[in-house]
Amino acid sequence: MLRFNCDYCEGAHPRILEKLTQTNLEQTAGYGNDPYCRQAAELIKQQCNAPQAAVHFLCGGTQTNLTVLAACLRPYQSIISPVSGHINVHEAGAIEATGHHIEPLPQEFGKITAAQIARVCKAHWEDDNPEFAPQPRTVYISFPTEYGTLYSLQELKEIRRVCDENHLFLFIDGARLGYGLTAPGNDVTLQDIAVLADVFYIGGTKIGALFGEAVVITNPKLQKDFRYFMKQKGAILAKGRLLGIQFLTLFEDRLYLQLARHANEMAMIIQKACQQAGLKFLYDSPTNQQFPVLPNDMLATLEETYSFAHMGCVDKNHSAIRICTSWATRPEDVAQLTADILKLSGK
Amino acid sequence: MLRFNCDYCEGAHPRILEKLTQTNLEQTAGYGNDPYCRQAAELIKQQCNAPQAAVHFLCGGTQTNLTVLAACLRPYQSIISPVSGHINVHEAGAIEATGHHIEPLPQEFGKITAAQIARVCKAHWEDDNPEFAPQPRTVYISFPTEYGTLYSLQELKEIRRVCDENHLFLFIDGARLGYGLTAPGNDVTLQDIAVLADVFYIGGTKIGALFGEAVVITNPKLQKDFRYFMKQKGAILAKGRLLGIQFLTLFEDRLYLQLARHANEMAMIIQKACQQAGLKFLYDSPTNQQFPVLPNDMLATLEETYSFAHMGCVDKNHSAIRICTSWATRPEDVAQLTADILKLSGK
Amino acid sequence: MLRFNCDYCEGAHPRILEKLTQTNLEQTAGYGNDPYCRQAAELIKQQCNAPQAAVHFLCGGTQTNLTVLAACLRPYQSIISPVSGHINVHEAGAIEATGHHIEPLPQEFGKITAAQIARVCKAHWEDDNPEFAPQPRTVYISFPTEYGTLYSLQELKEIRRVCDENHLFLFIDGARLGYGLTAPGNDVTLQDIAVLADVFYIGGTKIGALFGEAVVITNPKLQKDFRYFMKQKGAILAKGRLLGIQFLTLFEDRLYLQLARHANEMAMIIQKACQQAGLKFLYDSPTNQQFPVLPNDMLATLEETYSFAHMGCVDKNHSAIRICTSWATRPEDVAQLTADILKLSGK
Amino acid sequence: MLRFNCDYCEGAHPRILEKLTQTNLEQTAGYGNDPYCRQAAELIKQQCNAPQAAVHFLCGGTQTNLTVLAACLRPYQSIISPVSGHINVHEAGAIEATGHHIEPLPQEFGKITAAQIARVCKAHWEDDNPEFAPQPRTVYISFPTEYGTLYSLQELKEIRRVCDENHLFLFIDGARLGYGLTAPGNDVTLQDIAVLADVFYIGGTKIGALFGEAVVITNPKLQKDFRYFMKQKGAILAKGRLLGIQFLTLFEDRLYLQLARHANEMAMIIQKACQQAGLKFLYDSPTNQQFPVLPNDMLATLEETYSFAHMGCVDKNHSAIRICTSWATRPEDVAQLTADILKLSGK
Repeated sequence: MLRFNCDYCEGAHPRILEKLTQTNLEQTAGYGNDPYCRQAAELIKQQCNAPQAAVHFLCGGTQTNLTVLAACLRPYQSIISPVSGHINVHEAGAIEATGHHIEPLPQEFGKITAAQIARVCKAHWEDDNPEFAPQPRTVYISFPTEYGTLYSLQELKEIRRVCDENHLFLFIDGARLGYGLTAPGNDVTLQDIAVLADVFYIGGTKIGALFGEAVVITNPKLQKDFRYFMKQKGAILAKGRLLGIQFLTLFEDRLYLQLARHANEMAMIIQKACQQAGLKFLYDSPTNQQFPVLPNDMLATLEETYSFAHMGCVDKNHSAIRICTSWATRPEDVAQLTADILKLSGK
Repeated sequence: MLRFNCDYCEGAHPRILEKLTQTNLEQTAGYGNDPYCRQAAELIKQQCNAPQAAVHFLCGGTQTNLTVLAACLRPYQSIISPVSGHINVHEAGAIEATGHHIEPLPQEFGKITAAQIARVCKAHWEDDNPEFAPQPRTVYISFPTEYGTLYSLQELKEIRRVCDENHLFLFIDGARLGYGLTAPGNDVTLQDIAVLADVFYIGGTKIGALFGEAVVITNPKLQKDFRYFMKQKGAILAKGRLLGIQFLTLFEDRLYLQLARHANEMAMIIQKACQQAGLKFLYDSPTNQQFPVLPNDMLATLEETYSFAHMGCVDKNHSAIRICTSWATRPEDVAQLTADILKLSGK
Repeated sequence: MLRFNCDYCEGAHPRILEKLTQTNLEQTAGYGNDPYCRQAAELIKQQCNAPQAAVHFLCGGTQTNLTVLAACLRPYQSIISPVSGHINVHEAGAIEATGHHIEPLPQEFGKITAAQIARVCKAHWEDDNPEFAPQPRTVYISFPTEYGTLYSLQELKEIRRVCDENHLFLFIDGARLGYGLTAPGNDVTLQDIAVLADVFYIGGTKIGALFGEAVVITNPKLQKDFRYFMKQKGAILAKGRLLGIQFLTLFEDRLYLQLARHANEMAMIIQKACQQAGLKFLYDSPTNQQFPVLPNDMLATLEETYSFAHMGCVDKNHSAIRICTSWATRPEDVAQLTADILKLSGK
Repeated sequence: MLRFNCDYCEGAHPRILEKLTQTNLEQTAGYGNDPYCRQAAELIKQQCNAPQAAVHFLCGGTQTNLTVLAACLRPYQSIISPVSGHINVHEAGAIEATGHHIEPLPQEFGKITAAQIARVCKAHWEDDNPEFAPQPRTVYISFPTEYGTLYSLQELKEIRRVCDENHLFLFIDGARLGYGLTAPGNDVTLQDIAVLADVFYIGGTKIGALFGEAVVITNPKLQKDFRYFMKQKGAILAKGRLLGIQFLTLFEDRLYLQLARHANEMAMIIQKACQQAGLKFLYDSPTNQQFPVLPNDMLATLEETYSFAHMGCVDKNHSAIRICTSWATRPEDVAQLTADILKLSGK
């Protein structure tokens, strides 16, 4: 079975395991207070061009989202999110369990707009009794989105402006950040993200690490006492250096972007094959997740060999799937898949 | 200024104040452990035809909703609610602050359907990883709804069936229950509600009491330890008898339903006048809340004399309002209002 | 049965019921946005000599404590409290349910000292990893304490100084504030409390009101958005004026202090009788709660006529009880009780 | 600098890294739904002699504690814990942030007794208003304790009996379980733990793994929906197999116990040297943590070469420290340390 169902089917990029093995018997302080975490944080701040930022390493996406949002909000404050946002649909109510209301906005291609955000705020503050509804305080978006799509730099700047006008933090979920930064047509840089977001994270789990997300907090208000939040949520790893070593490896010579670029290239090959096969797509994604719509019999045949994620029925005879590539996707596997798609489509 | 903006502009029905005054210097146990609370609970159970029910008295709607839902749910479980449900829009995130996700469903006239609920459950349980989303466990509806509309007995029975099939509690918010029970065309009785809901409440604040909601728990699973939830939420009144005395007065000779019926009658007079004036309505409500759409200039003139709740612009020249009547609404005030509406409309 | 078991056995002072009856059919805005609440708040600010304070009216003690502490704390911050503090022992975990750790300090006569508080803070901040423990942020004390005892002005000033030195809010639970202010030997005024505390409340439930606590917030940091907290906790009463009217009545001509003084006087008569009877006391209380230790057979006889609160066995033959007086305690009942105590003690 | 300050200064036992490297490019399902997790769970169940148990893998101790306790408790229920319990002092209020009160009991050598637990329950249930205090529902103890001490089998059986009598779950924190099981004088087996506890965990982070705790749930009531709790707390690792592989390696040929035994042996050598040096101990620990009391000047000299954890001043001239050994502690480092201790003590 060849897995294309997600971007975390394998372990880590081999250089990470090598580095973990090399350093294995060194003794260091725990909880992220070690030289590797410090170096990795320095490197990330440099590459973000954000010397004043605080960088913390956490273990996974849901953990990161719930910890960051706890730090962003007082109890009565809410998060504006696309209805399709990971926090709204795939985290088992983690944010609400932290006490916060999510205000879900209709999404288009996984995205929301500055105008939508502004409308929510206007409605809140113009109400006779604003205190009867949760107070909007943070905007949550993903780059790339759940559907692999990207915000343009212009779109992000407009969202930032609306955030400034409405006293909102902007939190960018970067679980797949690298895939976005290296996507064809993308015009947003890591430095842009660091300027525009109050806090964001650089996902490692889905791009080459065993596990790990690097939270970059550029807004000083959110930096204060962040480690208390981490500890309280069980998000300080005892052997914190494991995270530092991984991110150091990923960022030392831009391995991170290189791995992401590879995945995108593999995805583009699959995209092209699907197009040649005459398949439609749910979303027009330039990143490592592709969402083609397949005839059910074609899907059934493919699934004898390949594993995909299911996105639901489109009509009686067609289903949408998600095909994921990753740093570890082998060109020969992609070649086999695309050949099969073309063959089955009769093209 | 004549207030029609809500149904709690005045104090309590005079008999309630008389009874509070009569009993004022009696000494009783606190916290609801007094004879008045016991008698009121007995009476309510009788009128519900639910001898096995537990009845508790709380102070207000939001407090009741958050306390009841805490008792209905484990931390990872969610509430299915119309998007317009009071808990979703007017309680400052009280339910999320208690840790729970609300699954908002599109509403029609403030209502949701059994089929919608069934679809949500099906989607949840058919997912490959159901544990990645909150687990549906309780359905929250209001009778009447936020928009004054009513579920038919048939609709409620279908919702109950879907709840049974999907292991869901049914919680009916009855902040305005009396108005629903006595509405023209309603076919649902208090006894029906007690059979169909696992837990519901009988609103006193909006129908004749100074304050107070009587929670009726028919499902034994939800009865256990309910007073712990109340205490933890600050919902056990020290001088609990104040609530017992009020509900005893309201239920002793069906005063409750009589007061509600009066409010509905006043509302129907207003409804008819609006219809005669050629006004449209946002919702077709048979209860004490009416939602006419007025020309803006007509509204401006009326608001020199009357106070309404605003429901937003309908178009450039029209706005929707809410007109509320209550047990305390005086026929002469309604006569004046309807005369003014007709006059201003030129009818 | 004559009840001396608590200070909320009766309803309200008659003038409160009269005022509620007089104003009953007036129409006002809801949620505390009415003239009575405004006037009551004004009056309280004047009598506190705190024109910049914000005053809010809530329904009961637990509700007030959990709402105020939610406003005082970020999620990782804790409350320093005497181990005997109401929030630590009698609120069903309401504060923890709001997400916060209570740091219980050993109490003496219900009180804690500035030195104890300073030690907790020192230990926290000197730890190598302070973020591994909750961060002390608020001191909670009661005036009078659970045991009827009082802090001296000097003691409160020292606690305030330690709070200033350690970036701590000081929250004074005044559920029985009036009894403290009017106690023999007390040297603390309402104005002192307003200067020393960041936030405190004036208890109405236990001193003459049907229900109600007036929260006085002197620290502007805690004033912001407080009504969101109230709404989220179900602590905004729909007919908010009921609270305004009650506090207006209590503060218009210092009725509040007069009622408290009466209760204290009744308590002193009981105290003296117990002393004459040779009884010891658990605590030396100058307020309306007295804690004598009685021979078990004497207690059994008294309990045929009187109701007390039990404080536990002291030894095989003796038990401690709490005797409470209130604004409603009748001198003739006290005379009867003290006569019986003296008679049974053979004095 | 030689680190004896904790038992997680190094990475993982080399066989774990080898196994991770070997399996690195395999493709498996995520979230713990992989063959390695299944095999590891099977092996653990076998070695626990608990075929009906559920085994889940989480990342760290605080995460595990807060997730397990969320599953054990309704919102109003509390945890009985030694005041020195990790959840009470070193988790930044993680349990309270989950909504629960911890009832801290005085500890002796880090332990609590069945009699203490019984007294707490008796006091709760005999109260006139038990619902005014959190309801005891779970006992939390650690094996070994924070101070390296152990419960005897008899003590654990008595605690179990009291739990049965009082409707309490027993949760045993086994962050250092292996050190306890292999300690000289210990009479408790892994199978005993599985019989006595409703839920416990086998700590990997502190005994040979990179990270990871294996939760063993023997009580079926706690098994239901446990993965929802995990997901909601961010405790399902995307590449879950990383945990399965580690525990498989640790349990395949009892490597786990072997590593723990080594650490204990190293600790006993240090213990003996301290005794020979005439040092006293805070606690009499048979496991990998030793708590000697040192003259301050001796400590200062040792700290030029070694790193310890500080346990506070004992008197003006003496301080207590914690010396930890681990699976990775080298005999030559222990030899050097003990030689230095003896030399500095003049023995």
